[in-house]
Amino acid sequence: MCAVVQQHDTREVLMVAWMDDEALASTLATGRATYYSRSRRSLWRKGDTSGHVQWVKRVSLDCDGDALLVEVDQVGAACHTGDRTCFDASPLPVRVGSRAEA
Amino acid sequence: MCAVVQQHDTREVLMVAWMDDEALASTLATGRATYYSRSRRSLWRKGDTSGHVQWVKRVSLDCDGDALLVEVDQVGAACHTGDRTCFDASPLPVRVGSRAEA
Repeated sequence: MCAVVQQHDTREVLMVAWMDDEALASTLATGRATYYSRSRRSLWRKGDTSGHVQWVKRVSLDCDGDALLVEVDQVGAACHTGDRTCFDASPLPVRVGSRAEA
Repeated sequence: MCAVVQQHDTREVLMVAWMDDEALASTLATGRATYYSRSRRSLWRKGDTSGHVQWVKRVSLDCDGDALLVEVDQVGAACHTGDRTCFDASPLPVRVGSRAEA
């Protein structure tokens, strides 16, 4: 299922990844965030290659049980591009909405 | 694609939903968060039934173009259960990790 990864103290959303049952069990048991790669069909533990480890502080399931919120302490960059988060590079043009319109 | 919805000021992660191209275009153009229901195969604009509107402040695409971060001003509860967020009810038992272990 879809896992939203958030820095536990600043509350930045760092990235989105995927977890199967095995990745979730490993994440809960070890304190290190572990994901499932749908393209490679294998588990990967964040930071094993890059050193950019995610130390797990809290994991929550959503109301319908198909998404996870994983709160971590991110060492270094979350994104493989070297950006702090995977959402830093591409803001989209948006009409900003406001309660005043209601 | 997967859309992570975050309260723009407190940075709470409110929910995860899905957007297709039409839902994204509507969200960007109107300032109201609009999603695609995979079960009902139709668009839904958050708050039309519940009143719990999401006013859109910022939308960002992730590094590999398959996830969105939608920063909103959430009116009332994000979750259909009445909870503020969809992640409030179900924290999982986790071994907490720490940099001190590295």
